[in-house]
Amino acid sequence: MPRQITSFSNETVKRLRALRDKKARREEGLFLAEGLRILTEARDSGRLPEIIAYSAAGGVHPLAAEIIAGAEAQGADVIETSPDILSKMSGKDNPQAILGAYRQPDTSLASIDRTASPLWIVAQALRDPGNIGTILRTGDATAAGGLILIDDSADAFSVEAVRASMGAIFTQAVATAPWEEFLPWLRSGPGQLVGTSLNTGNDYLDATYQQPCFLLIGNESQGLPASYEAECDLLVKMPMLGRADSLNAAVAAAVMAFQLRASWRNP
Amino acid sequence: MPRQITSFSNETVKRLRALRDKKARREEGLFLAEGLRILTEARDSGRLPEIIAYSAAGGVHPLAAEIIAGAEAQGADVIETSPDILSKMSGKDNPQAILGAYRQPDTSLASIDRTASPLWIVAQALRDPGNIGTILRTGDATAAGGLILIDDSADAFSVEAVRASMGAIFTQAVATAPWEEFLPWLRSGPGQLVGTSLNTGNDYLDATYQQPCFLLIGNESQGLPASYEAECDLLVKMPMLGRADSLNAAVAAAVMAFQLRASWRNP
Repeated sequence: MPRQITSFSNETVKRLRALRDKKARREEGLFLAEGLRILTEARDSGRLPEIIAYSAAGGVHPLAAEIIAGAEAQGADVIETSPDILSKMSGKDNPQAILGAYRQPDTSLASIDRTASPLWIVAQALRDPGNIGTILRTGDATAAGGLILIDDSADAFSVEAVRASMGAIFTQAVATAPWEEFLPWLRSGPGQLVGTSLNTGNDYLDATYQQPCFLLIGNESQGLPASYEAECDLLVKMPMLGRADSLNAAVAAAVMAFQLRASWRNP
Repeated sequence: MPRQITSFSNETVKRLRALRDKKARREEGLFLAEGLRILTEARDSGRLPEIIAYSAAGGVHPLAAEIIAGAEAQGADVIETSPDILSKMSGKDNPQAILGAYRQPDTSLASIDRTASPLWIVAQALRDPGNIGTILRTGDATAAGGLILIDDSADAFSVEAVRASMGAIFTQAVATAPWEEFLPWLRSGPGQLVGTSLNTGNDYLDATYQQPCFLLIGNESQGLPASYEAECDLLVKMPMLGRADSLNAAVAAAVMAFQLRASWRNP
């Protein structure tokens, strides 16, 4: 049976709220996802929350009731609470009526099966969790295998990234690794490392992309370090027809990911 | 000569700070842009601020000195102040060392010269100013003429949108109009209205795009209303290979804008 919680100082409320911080996520091994749409995406991907909290309004939808019952059957901590307390947990003025805390998956490179998809997105030192979530969402749309976050990156399991992923956090693999670890892992199997750069004459529309392709996206403000570009098997240039010399990182990832898929469809 | 301002309660400080609110922007006809990179983009596009504020550190760069001198020569209000006060103005903990208040351009449809570019982006009821800025940045990269914001939209001149535009707010035309006004304007001249939709068999890679093309992007959560889709000259579908049925709005705009340019290069 759900527990009714009406106190802001309840331990579970505090615990869920703490998951907005990376340190607490790492210690607990849990992360927050909000909203029936994302919780349904999780359920359809075979994932149920270990803790689930909802308001009276949030529990009535048949899909929500199903997820709540399923989580409870697996031993989840199920709490019914007020919109105010949900707001405190999520940090949003207008909180979703349901949220869940999910077990973080293994994010080691060893967890990545590169044969699972011809397309992988690799992003270096991204600062903006919204970009990470948006790239995950694009990864889902292009049936990428997942996202490999290189070096010191914002957290893919932050509330902002999970929100922007629109549920793709549950369908895309996520790994994190320093470059020095990623590169030998990459070279231990098949894979073409493709970077976007201004320092090449290869147009992105004319290039030949192999499978699996690892698409390397640089940091929002600096782009790729020269030494990382030097390790790429292929550098391609996206034409910049205006005054700016770069795109938003999530936009660059998307235009490239769709172009890879297009090139494979029309050889 | 620059005025030295050290008081948070100074009238100009309060006036600049107020520009974070849409109401003040509308009343003053001014908007804020921060950082030497964006101010330089503005200068290169022939635009100087009417008010300019910088810290001692922000004024020393030769480009900054040039912009400050140019603005002063045009009668701008030039103030040197502290990082703390700049922080208050911009609402950021780590503010840029220089910022300017610029005159908002005419955003009526009458200001749009559709012959200026073969590509225009039209976005309906966008909620996220970051998406608007990112679309402007993509518009610059694809040499779009500008962005037409339909219906009730976040503000392209908000601090967040200007920041995400990375200066493209100065190179892209911006217009705002309700759909009922946009549609007759569109039909008063040449232009193919292209929408992305799940309700069509036309693949976006195989379609023929005419010039000028008006690329219509729907709201972040609802997508395009059916009645707007019905007015499109062409609906195209971007393949969704995963579980999700939509892309981030700025990502959809970018993939389509690059595809329009690609199709015109390789007929």
